[in-house]
Amino acid sequence: MKIELRHGAGGEDTSRLIADLFAQAFANDILNKMEDGAVLPVMQGNPVFTSDSFVVDPITFPGGDIGKLAVCGTVNDLACMGAKPLYLTASFILETGLDTAVLEPIIKSMAATAREAGVQIVAGDTKVVEGKGGLFINTAGLGERAVGVDISAANLKPGDKLIVTGTLGDHHAVILTQRLQISLEAQSDCAPLNHMVQKLLAEGVNLHTVRDITRGGLATVANELAATSKVKILLEEEKIPVNEAVKGLCGILGLEPINMGNEGKLLIAIPAEEAEKALELIKADKYGAEAAIVGEVMEGKGVRLQTALGGSRRVLPLRGEGLPRIC
Amino acid sequence: MKIELRHGAGGEDTSRLIADLFAQAFANDILNKMEDGAVLPVMQGNPVFTSDSFVVDPITFPGGDIGKLAVCGTVNDLACMGAKPLYLTASFILETGLDTAVLEPIIKSMAATAREAGVQIVAGDTKVVEGKGGLFINTAGLGERAVGVDISAANLKPGDKLIVTGTLGDHHAVILTQRLQISLEAQSDCAPLNHMVQKLLAEGVNLHTVRDITRGGLATVANELAATSKVKILLEEEKIPVNEAVKGLCGILGLEPINMGNEGKLLIAIPAEEAEKALELIKADKYGAEAAIVGEVMEGKGVRLQTALGGSRRVLPLRGEGLPRIC
Repeated sequence: MKIELRHGAGGEDTSRLIADLFAQAFANDILNKMEDGAVLPVMQGNPVFTSDSFVVDPITFPGGDIGKLAVCGTVNDLACMGAKPLYLTASFILETGLDTAVLEPIIKSMAATAREAGVQIVAGDTKVVEGKGGLFINTAGLGERAVGVDISAANLKPGDKLIVTGTLGDHHAVILTQRLQISLEAQSDCAPLNHMVQKLLAEGVNLHTVRDITRGGLATVANELAATSKVKILLEEEKIPVNEAVKGLCGILGLEPINMGNEGKLLIAIPAEEAEKALELIKADKYGAEAAIVGEVMEGKGVRLQTALGGSRRVLPLRGEGLPRIC
Repeated sequence: MKIELRHGAGGEDTSRLIADLFAQAFANDILNKMEDGAVLPVMQGNPVFTSDSFVVDPITFPGGDIGKLAVCGTVNDLACMGAKPLYLTASFILETGLDTAVLEPIIKSMAATAREAGVQIVAGDTKVVEGKGGLFINTAGLGERAVGVDISAANLKPGDKLIVTGTLGDHHAVILTQRLQISLEAQSDCAPLNHMVQKLLAEGVNLHTVRDITRGGLATVANELAATSKVKILLEEEKIPVNEAVKGLCGILGLEPINMGNEGKLLIAIPAEEAEKALELIKADKYGAEAAIVGEVMEGKGVRLQTALGGSRRVLPLRGEGLPRIC
């Protein structure tokens, strides 16, 4: 069945679409009430609240799809604040012409990723606009953070070690090669990382800063953190993990992995004395096998990259358009 | 300045757009931290969580714009659950070609409406897609409801009176006439109704059900409530308030106000003995002057409308496409 404008009118056609597709896949006691808002159990800790819209093109790609991305992106934003992600809303803007045979696996993938992350989809919305069969998804997320936890972009301290939780550039490379219709031996790294962060917290690691390395890549994220914390960041090029296929693509196209977006990688800052313990815990995680210590925090400002040849150069945040619609 | 794809890449151009437009207009202590998620103060009551996307076309119309709508829609969803709306996220999907001179007043209108409603915009997201200068906005909302409050679509009781808080069809009529480029002496009713509901709760009115009468109109909302609460709803056509200009338009185009969407009207169910007190409180509110008791709840099922001529007919939920992109 193709989506038509009537599916967004809020009447019977909208209700049936929601009942057939969304309500079944996402079913839980809170969502099933189908009220204007989801009433949630009282929380003890600090609520943490975030939202992202997803416009990735193509909507399905090796390693994931827009639905998986929409769950991971918001779950990871909560995880980066040290919160346990609990609830998501899922709002869909469907374009006319979208086939429900395309939409259904995306919904199922959202539901499966939400189960893996341990979050419930408790409310949602469906709109339809004229278009060419695409869709946009917004997820808002609500998590709970134990009172006293203080993980923040402002907490980098001179002496901290910086860990990247895996290879850089995979998601960017996959979306780019899909768009160019060239094949690549790589998959998007799209993954929910909340269990990894919760494990570090549970083991008592003193996390100063956790940030997911999305649009703009490590270069942009490192610059933002250095500016917010008023410190200098030194990265070592040789230590930054990059998948061989992605490295090859970068060589051919003149791309740099530190400018490329990821959907399942974190940059973590921790006191030097806890770095090895943290690295071990991360490497033991399903999504952390390739983690590495890639740099450190110093007095000063800006971001520098020590190159393999022993030189060093300034790293700037992404300028210009990067890769449109990467997430 | 026209929006280009580079404004959505997550690098410097995105940061500057956010700093210049969004961060200034929405500024508050939580948003200003610019973290991956907003860390909120501990809540005593039940968190209430909701989300809506807004795709209204045209994006500016008499009585409002997509920004005001995006705040009111989500604030009203929280109010309908008996929650005090506290925080919003605001996520923008901008189309290339959108002029920032068009976007800026929409942002300011969002900020002003948020101030009126008493909510803070604490997190957001900006994406850019190829298009013709339009935009979509998603707002997610978080409110707090006192433990023990129980307002629900399942709480209609036989004997309850039904109040509509003002004239029906205004928003629908305005969007329709804008689309048809005909003029109408009417304004969208787009308004935040949380203070009205909070006042009723503070005065101890026993609210059984509160629902905003949006897409699909009173006909659809009444049918949903009757089905959820397993009761029959009887509406009296003569008592339903309709603005004269809207009535005229309905006559010409063969529309029915009960099928038309609103953005600042509630349907409220309360025990008969509290109906007059509630009506008085609502009429004293800025957005409730035209409120009326329009019907009652009975044993049975479905929705019936008693017509001005003394007959009665079955009311069905909206079928087909209604008015596309009304909100």
